[in-house]
Amino acid sequence: MKAEPICDMLVLEPCPKGELAVDPFVPPLNFAMVDHGIYRSGFPSPDNFRFLKTLKLRSILCVILFQVPCFVCRCLCQDPYPDINIEFLQENRITLVKIGIDGSKEATIPENRIREALKVVLDVLNHPLLIHCKRGKHRTGCVVGCLRKLQRWCIASAIDEYNCYAAAKARVSDQKFIAEFDETSMDQFQLHAKKTSFSTPDEALHHPEINREQ
Amino acid sequence: MKAEPICDMLVLEPCPKGELAVDPFVPPLNFAMVDHGIYRSGFPSPDNFRFLKTLKLRSILCVILFQVPCFVCRCLCQDPYPDINIEFLQENRITLVKIGIDGSKEATIPENRIREALKVVLDVLNHPLLIHCKRGKHRTGCVVGCLRKLQRWCIASAIDEYNCYAAAKARVSDQKFIAEFDETSMDQFQLHAKKTSFSTPDEALHHPEINREQ
Repeated sequence: MKAEPICDMLVLEPCPKGELAVDPFVPPLNFAMVDHGIYRSGFPSPDNFRFLKTLKLRSILCVILFQVPCFVCRCLCQDPYPDINIEFLQENRITLVKIGIDGSKEATIPENRIREALKVVLDVLNHPLLIHCKRGKHRTGCVVGCLRKLQRWCIASAIDEYNCYAAAKARVSDQKFIAEFDETSMDQFQLHAKKTSFSTPDEALHHPEINREQ
Repeated sequence: MKAEPICDMLVLEPCPKGELAVDPFVPPLNFAMVDHGIYRSGFPSPDNFRFLKTLKLRSILCVILFQVPCFVCRCLCQDPYPDINIEFLQENRITLVKIGIDGSKEATIPENRIREALKVVLDVLNHPLLIHCKRGKHRTGCVVGCLRKLQRWCIASAIDEYNCYAAAKARVSDQKFIAEFDETSMDQFQLHAKKTSFSTPDEALHHPEINREQ
C-alpha cells in the first residue's frame, strides 16, 4: 500500500493490513520549518533518518567548525562528517555543504561565513535544504535570524524567533549580531538569488569557505 | 517596481528608486510555519496585517472562546472578533473559522473541539491557513501538538515543539493532553483529508461548533 501524503511534509505509511504503521517519526532535535524548502535543526542522528527522508532534501548545510586536537601536529585539524551520516546522504543523493563556524561562547561570529551560509540558503536550487549545527540553537539561530532580516522582518521578531529555539541558552552576543547584521549589503545578491547557484563542483572550488561533499 | 518574491513567504519590496523599502514586516507574536500552507501565531494585530498579506492566506482558524461578562443578563456572552480584523479579512477574502476553546489554566481541553480544529487544518482547501489563539502558546500548541501526532511524530518531539512556543508558560495538562491524544481515531478522516472540505457555508451550518465568518 502506497504512503499517502497529506501535505508535503506529512506522510502516512499504512501497514499491509491497511492499519497505520506504528513506528513514529523522530525529527532531529529543535527541528522546524523556516520557510518553503528551508528547514532547521540540531545534528541529525540515525534515529532521524527515516523522518528526514520524508523531506526529500536536496542539500544539508552544516554550519559546524569540525576541530579535533591532533596529537601528531598538535594543531586543530578538520574532522569529517560522521560516516553513517555520509552514507545516508549518498543513499538519498543529498549534497552536504559545510561552512565552518565555531559555536563556542567566546568565539566571534564570523560575518563572512554567515553571508556564505545565507547565499547557500537563498539559492532555491539547493532546496529543500536543512540548516543544522549541533543543537540548532546558536549558529543555526544566527543564520536564520539574518535570513529574517533579509526577509524584512523587524529586529524584535527575528530575535524573538532566535530566543524561541535557543531558550535558556540564548546569547546576548548572537542577539547583537542579528540586530546589527547589515542585510542591505546582500540586496543585490538576494534579488538574483533565484538565478544564482553554487551547486556545481567547479563553482564550489572558487568558494574555499564552502566545503561540498556528496 | 514590482515586489520580488524569493520564496513564497519571502517578499522584497523595492522603493521606486530601486532601493529596498525601509519599513520592516512585523509577524504576529510567536509566528511560525508549521507545514506547507499551515502557519501558527498569537492574536494578529493591525501591525501584523502587512506581513500577513504576504502569506496570501485563504483561512484563519481562531481557537479562542470569546467570553465577556454581560452586565445585562450576567452570563458569559460571545464577543465578536475585533472589527478591524474583520475588515482585514474581508479586504483580503480570508475566511474566518472560530472554534471556541477556553484557554484558562483551570479549563479542561475539549477533545472534540481539538478534533474539529484538526479537520479544518488538514483540509487543504483551507490552505494557506493561520492557526491562532491569544499568545500562540497553549491552545494553538495543543492543536499543533495533536497534528504532529497525526503526522506520526513521536510524542517527545511533539511535546518538545509545544515547549518551544509555550516556553516558561508550558502546562503539564497540555503536554499530557498531547501525549494521550488518540490520533488513530482520526485516521479515516486523515486519509481522505484532501477530498473533504468544510468550506461551504451550508456545510458549516451542520457543524455547530464551527463558526464561520467572511
